[in-house]
Amino acid sequence: MSAAVQSAVLGATGYSGYELTKRLLAHPSVKQPALFRVNPDPTQSPNLADWYPQLSGNGYGQLVMDAFSWDALKAKGTDVIFFCTPHEVSRELAIEAGDRGFRVVDLSGAWRLKEATNRAVYKFEDHDPAQAALLDQQAVYGSPELHKYAIEKAELVANPGCYATSIILALAAWTNDGLIDLEFGVICDSKSGVSGAGKAPSPTTHFVEVADSLSAYSVFGHRHTGEMLEQLGLEASQLQFTPHLLPIPRGILSTIYVRPKTGVTAEVLEYSLKEFAVGKPFVRVFAPGKLPQIKYSLHTNYCDIGFQLSPDGSRAVLVSCLDNLVKGAAGQAIQNMNLMFGFDEREGLQ
Amino acid sequence: MSAAVQSAVLGATGYSGYELTKRLLAHPSVKQPALFRVNPDPTQSPNLADWYPQLSGNGYGQLVMDAFSWDALKAKGTDVIFFCTPHEVSRELAIEAGDRGFRVVDLSGAWRLKEATNRAVYKFEDHDPAQAALLDQQAVYGSPELHKYAIEKAELVANPGCYATSIILALAAWTNDGLIDLEFGVICDSKSGVSGAGKAPSPTTHFVEVADSLSAYSVFGHRHTGEMLEQLGLEASQLQFTPHLLPIPRGILSTIYVRPKTGVTAEVLEYSLKEFAVGKPFVRVFAPGKLPQIKYSLHTNYCDIGFQLSPDGSRAVLVSCLDNLVKGAAGQAIQNMNLMFGFDEREGLQ
Amino acid sequence: MSAAVQSAVLGATGYSGYELTKRLLAHPSVKQPALFRVNPDPTQSPNLADWYPQLSGNGYGQLVMDAFSWDALKAKGTDVIFFCTPHEVSRELAIEAGDRGFRVVDLSGAWRLKEATNRAVYKFEDHDPAQAALLDQQAVYGSPELHKYAIEKAELVANPGCYATSIILALAAWTNDGLIDLEFGVICDSKSGVSGAGKAPSPTTHFVEVADSLSAYSVFGHRHTGEMLEQLGLEASQLQFTPHLLPIPRGILSTIYVRPKTGVTAEVLEYSLKEFAVGKPFVRVFAPGKLPQIKYSLHTNYCDIGFQLSPDGSRAVLVSCLDNLVKGAAGQAIQNMNLMFGFDEREGLQ
Amino acid sequence: MSAAVQSAVLGATGYSGYELTKRLLAHPSVKQPALFRVNPDPTQSPNLADWYPQLSGNGYGQLVMDAFSWDALKAKGTDVIFFCTPHEVSRELAIEAGDRGFRVVDLSGAWRLKEATNRAVYKFEDHDPAQAALLDQQAVYGSPELHKYAIEKAELVANPGCYATSIILALAAWTNDGLIDLEFGVICDSKSGVSGAGKAPSPTTHFVEVADSLSAYSVFGHRHTGEMLEQLGLEASQLQFTPHLLPIPRGILSTIYVRPKTGVTAEVLEYSLKEFAVGKPFVRVFAPGKLPQIKYSLHTNYCDIGFQLSPDGSRAVLVSCLDNLVKGAAGQAIQNMNLMFGFDEREGLQ
Repeated sequence: MSAAVQSAVLGATGYSGYELTKRLLAHPSVKQPALFRVNPDPTQSPNLADWYPQLSGNGYGQLVMDAFSWDALKAKGTDVIFFCTPHEVSRELAIEAGDRGFRVVDLSGAWRLKEATNRAVYKFEDHDPAQAALLDQQAVYGSPELHKYAIEKAELVANPGCYATSIILALAAWTNDGLIDLEFGVICDSKSGVSGAGKAPSPTTHFVEVADSLSAYSVFGHRHTGEMLEQLGLEASQLQFTPHLLPIPRGILSTIYVRPKTGVTAEVLEYSLKEFAVGKPFVRVFAPGKLPQIKYSLHTNYCDIGFQLSPDGSRAVLVSCLDNLVKGAAGQAIQNMNLMFGFDEREGLQ
Repeated sequence: MSAAVQSAVLGATGYSGYELTKRLLAHPSVKQPALFRVNPDPTQSPNLADWYPQLSGNGYGQLVMDAFSWDALKAKGTDVIFFCTPHEVSRELAIEAGDRGFRVVDLSGAWRLKEATNRAVYKFEDHDPAQAALLDQQAVYGSPELHKYAIEKAELVANPGCYATSIILALAAWTNDGLIDLEFGVICDSKSGVSGAGKAPSPTTHFVEVADSLSAYSVFGHRHTGEMLEQLGLEASQLQFTPHLLPIPRGILSTIYVRPKTGVTAEVLEYSLKEFAVGKPFVRVFAPGKLPQIKYSLHTNYCDIGFQLSPDGSRAVLVSCLDNLVKGAAGQAIQNMNLMFGFDEREGLQ
Repeated sequence: MSAAVQSAVLGATGYSGYELTKRLLAHPSVKQPALFRVNPDPTQSPNLADWYPQLSGNGYGQLVMDAFSWDALKAKGTDVIFFCTPHEVSRELAIEAGDRGFRVVDLSGAWRLKEATNRAVYKFEDHDPAQAALLDQQAVYGSPELHKYAIEKAELVANPGCYATSIILALAAWTNDGLIDLEFGVICDSKSGVSGAGKAPSPTTHFVEVADSLSAYSVFGHRHTGEMLEQLGLEASQLQFTPHLLPIPRGILSTIYVRPKTGVTAEVLEYSLKEFAVGKPFVRVFAPGKLPQIKYSLHTNYCDIGFQLSPDGSRAVLVSCLDNLVKGAAGQAIQNMNLMFGFDEREGLQ
Repeated sequence: MSAAVQSAVLGATGYSGYELTKRLLAHPSVKQPALFRVNPDPTQSPNLADWYPQLSGNGYGQLVMDAFSWDALKAKGTDVIFFCTPHEVSRELAIEAGDRGFRVVDLSGAWRLKEATNRAVYKFEDHDPAQAALLDQQAVYGSPELHKYAIEKAELVANPGCYATSIILALAAWTNDGLIDLEFGVICDSKSGVSGAGKAPSPTTHFVEVADSLSAYSVFGHRHTGEMLEQLGLEASQLQFTPHLLPIPRGILSTIYVRPKTGVTAEVLEYSLKEFAVGKPFVRVFAPGKLPQIKYSLHTNYCDIGFQLSPDGSRAVLVSCLDNLVKGAAGQAIQNMNLMFGFDEREGLQ
């Protein structure tokens, strides 16, 4: 058990950064986080409560975001840095953070992928490619349900993507147990609320464009696909992932279609899921025939999973739900920090 | 070309019935429709404008719904009856309508299915099973894009289901042209607005239950599945259909996953779709790489279709959109009436 | 009755401009409108169907927006120009349009106000202040319900603001008839959908910021206040107008609180409203005790009005609703054009 | 400071009852609440997690609702009963609860009003009118900001209405300090999310009826009006309250229009609000010119208050926001319980 940990948040103004900060402020075992902005726009307020008035009056005092510098970070006594920054920024800063001895949880996509073919979609332009390649392999994929022990010792934890989390946690039990006939492929049809697209205004996040509608996007080649392939041990030809933009603020539901291998019954499939969930406090497996809905896991760190098997046993449909800003981002980041510093996995998340 | 047609609407108070009535009132070639209620609740207003105040002041005068009787129907000089009634009611009344010489467009699921195995899900309790069986075969599935000439002469048109329309129109070209490798199956993941669930209040349509959420339902065995199988010539094992309830009032988006046969290129797939759309004024095929969104077809009779092929050519994703109350119900019903009475297919629908 | 009129739309890509264009395309007495962009961004498509795919396939062919110039406008044989441009642009172009003999309907706030004190909020910077001042007085406030005959002959019609329309039409009868005790003031609490804020992305129109919330803004001094004062003949101290941003795409509801003069009964108030509505096809007065809701007038050109009087007769609450993009913008613009060119007021609006 | 308190919830399945139960489960100083249903429908599950699957897996075990009886209540060692029941039920049970020595927090409208004229709107049919009349006077209106010391000792706390809370807390400072010119009246225009209408399905809470719209209702004579009058010391003629139904699940925003007395400046008004908020941890007064929005207080127990004064000083507009299920119901109920049992007012509410 560690003494109180000092965390720092880089980029608290985005949706994930704000959700993270709010939860760090209420976390019983960490000090009030230090807040920093990287290359701040001087016309924008450094006071986080001006960005999120809901923070006012909680007794935290002024929540001022300082301009980021390594010295300022050190002066605060920082133990762990949360990068809530664009992946280009994370890519650059994480190397130096390691050199300076800071432990890091990176919420961007910068360090999640081991395979160069999967990283290609990000078009990283590394200043020191050799060092970056080294860190690519040292970084630990921050799925506590899959890599608990590695996370505990990790210097750099790559917090998983929101879509990836919803699909990896739903499928890991069955792929690990070899229950799926992969020849037929795995079809993942995901639907996400708009906060997944970030806080920057754009034509695609304008209220009028999103409301009363639904759209598919990145039908092939979404950046999170590589995470799913690597973590589930699938080949690209075996996995189809298509996201959709829902007219709701937050939440993801993934509908996953697979063919169980011959002889795999509903009982086997259920047993596999329940076994997987043992000791994983944020995985909720629903009773047979019951399926999760987005609203059940909103504002929580749960990933909810349910499935149904077709009457002839030839097809299974998995449904998983989570809150993209919690289990899909800030909550999972805190769960990772808890593991890194020896806290109970659930601290600050209930 | 017929003279002005007299139509009658049974059940104008539901969402489809209202949408139909509104469009019949504005149709240039039909008289003001006669409105009837079957077994009306005497505590409820017979004036349609009390149910839908948006109808007021359009110069149609009082839109009174009379109590249904065959004599009243005849007295109005009715040429065609639209059944916007529960399928049990349609199942019973359609037989007598035929005996009395009325042409019928039935918006329920009562007469859409030819195969007894597919009809089983409805659990029909026919008073005269032999006559019902006869009518099952005489009824014409009212998809103008598939059965135009049969509809023109039909006495009983079974207006297709909303989900079924979105999937049949998207897939018909490729299944007809034999472009899909059916061994891998066809996965249809559909999402619908709440009006598809009808106007009767229920826990599942309560605003608070639907808002900010998403849920899958009828993961296997939804009633519209049989229509898809029969119209596309697929076997049950080849088609997976799963609907979801969207927090929007209206509109359907279906995402459909297929494997093209070896050697079938994007050009072949596109050509097939475009050929299919020729002469079909309400099918819009999107340019390669562009996909429809729900908002594009709202309040129109279009079914919008687009697709993308994976870079390796092994998977195609079709997206189709329509307004469940228009092309998925009332608009398609009017399109059918137009064909039955020799009008231009587009009359009253633009 | 004029022969077919040639219209031109400047700025068809915004929400009002698109709504206008769509309705002009379907208008039975005008030719297909000429579309122009003022200082177009060359990186953006000139094809309107790329901005609004819902336009595709309607048989209008390519809807290309040309770069604006006076010569191009003349070459198209333009009779009337609709300015769907920022008010600064309208302020500049309208003067030259008049000099060149084009009739104009301006949808911006540039020419709506007669009083310099009311115009001050816009901070106009006129190149030729004298000519602008002249045009300020010549411009006709385009409320067909108030200024029908002036509109018929007008060269420049200033299409009213959306909020202003909802409040002016609700109050005009009672202020004209002197039924309100103005000493107590008139309180107007309005709520509008997000399209009223325009199509440009901004933090305040981001889906996540708007959804599940409500906010008041411009509590004092909103730009539309001046229109209300001038058209209703009120002094600033007598009118309070506060708008709110609703989490819906379109529609306005205004709740208006007044004190009737002593002795003014519900019957008098109702009679006044009904008298006002005579001959005004787009004003719907609801039966006593019934109130309009936003959904009743969506996608129509109606302004719906209802009221209730307190049991003691001391307070009346008026509720008015309209679609901000139709009666609050594009529909009213077409209504004005209809009057300017001798068409039936309702053409293209039903 | 009391030892752990045993609470009981009657009616945990409604929105307020569920919100309350969830918060009691997490409250650090109370035992797991006993759950009861009054006259339960035997076809409905007694397990609360079947009603709200989001409760699953939180480590609370089965949350079974027993059939209510006084003996069962006593057997659980109940110290305080929360009535989340219809007001008729609360009206009947509260009397016997007092006789049996249970302390009560009633979330219905049964016991909030002191004046018979105000109570008339509820049409109570008391079995023992004399005893009911006695309890009407003994019951304490459960606004901790107004009646803290009475609540501490109360046997029966009448938890305030949601609308009433939003208006009373916004106005109490200024009415107490005599800053408002009441001759001109106080106009309260409130807007509420749909959960305020309860969980029972009805035409007015159907998703399709609520979405994309807004409506005013109970324009005069809403049940919460009496609470406002009594708590603020106003006469009926001085207060106008009109609620509206917003297409969001939860949250209330009230816009309140008043005339300050001559000479009352913005500084005086602000000082009065800030003075009022001293020692009231759940009242947040916004900085001058800043106004609360519904999203700021969602899922919290705050009532947020801001105001602006017109440039000429003649009118002030107050805006207050709260979550109708938290500060407007369950959160305030817990705050009351905290006071009744000597806990910190904020326990279980942060």
